[in-house]
Amino acid sequence: MIVLGIDPGSQYTGYGVISCDGPGEHILEYGVLRLGRYDEHQLRLKKIYDEITAIAARFCPDECAIEMPVYGSNPQSMLKLGRAQAAAMIAMLNREIPVTEYTPKQVKKAVTGRGNASKEQVRYMVRAILSIKDEDDNNAMEADASDALAVGLCHVHRHGKGGTQRPASWKSFLRANPDIVIE
Amino acid sequence: MIVLGIDPGSQYTGYGVISCDGPGEHILEYGVLRLGRYDEHQLRLKKIYDEITAIAARFCPDECAIEMPVYGSNPQSMLKLGRAQAAAMIAMLNREIPVTEYTPKQVKKAVTGRGNASKEQVRYMVRAILSIKDEDDNNAMEADASDALAVGLCHVHRHGKGGTQRPASWKSFLRANPDIVIE
Repeated sequence: MIVLGIDPGSQYTGYGVISCDGPGEHILEYGVLRLGRYDEHQLRLKKIYDEITAIAARFCPDECAIEMPVYGSNPQSMLKLGRAQAAAMIAMLNREIPVTEYTPKQVKKAVTGRGNASKEQVRYMVRAILSIKDEDDNNAMEADASDALAVGLCHVHRHGKGGTQRPASWKSFLRANPDIVIE
Repeated sequence: MIVLGIDPGSQYTGYGVISCDGPGEHILEYGVLRLGRYDEHQLRLKKIYDEITAIAARFCPDECAIEMPVYGSNPQSMLKLGRAQAAAMIAMLNREIPVTEYTPKQVKKAVTGRGNASKEQVRYMVRAILSIKDEDDNNAMEADASDALAVGLCHVHRHGKGGTQRPASWKSFLRANPDIVIE
C-alpha cells in the first residue's frame, strides 16, 4: 500500500509518500510546496491542486491522510487553511483516492507516543521510523515535510497496512467472512 | 458575457447564471445545491466541485463571481466555509474561468444601494433587476440562489459588460491604446 500524507497550508504545503509493502515503512518522496511566492491566493490553491494531482499521478497512492487542525483562534486564517485543505482533498477525490483526516494531536501521539510533542520531536521520530540518514537527506527535511510524513505514518499505524478497507469491527469481519465461523 | 455567481456553503451552495449580452441582464438558470443530505463533509466538497463543473460545462461562463464573507466568529465554521469556497473556485480555475471575490457588503451595496440590506431586500432587487415574475418562478427563489444572482450582478455592475479584462485605470488604458493620445 502507498500512502500520501499531506500537511496543507496556504504558505507551505508539505507532502510525503510512504510505501508500506514489505517489512516496515519506507519513504518514496517528500517535499514542500512553497506558495508564499504567489501573491494571489487563488493561484496558490490552483498550485496545490495541480502539484498534488501530479504527485498522485507519479506514485498512484492507494490512500491519503491529511492533517486537519480542529481549532484556530483567527477565523480569517481558518478560512485560508480550509481552502488549502480543500484544494488537496479535491485533487485526491477526483482520482477516487480515499482521504482520512487526523488532528495534529492524533498524528503526534501515533508517531512519538505523546500528543503534545514538539515539531522537532516529530521530525526526529519520522526520520528514525523511516531510517532517513543525514547523508541521504540533501535538502534537510523541513517541518512541513516531516509533518506530512508523520500524518502518513499515523494513517498506516491506525489502519494497518491493509488501509481503511479492513473491517471496522470483529462483527463486520465475521459478516464478510462467514466461512470461518464453525457452528 | 455570461457570469456565474456563486454563494458557497457546506450546507447550501447557491448559484446563478446571468447573461449580459444585449440591453440589461437576463437570467439563464439559478438554483441551490442541497448538501446537508450528505453526512460526509468530503462528499459535499466533491458534490460542489462536480456540480459547479457541470454548470460551467452547460453555460460556458466567461467569468465567475463568488461571495466571500471576510469575518466569522466561529473558526470551525470558517474552516468549512473556506473548503466549500475552494471547491467552487477550483472547479472554475480548472476551466480557466477568472474568479473575482466580493464581500457580502459589496454585493448588497451593488444590488440595493445599501451595504446592510436584508436578505429579503436583496431578493426583491434581484427579481426586479432580472425581471423575474412570480409566475415564472416555479420553485420560489431561495435566499442562497438570490444571493448567488446578486454576486453575479455585482460583478457585472462593477466591471462592466466587458468583464475584468478592461483596464484597471485610465493610465493603463492609455498605455494599451497609445494611438488615442494627441501630442
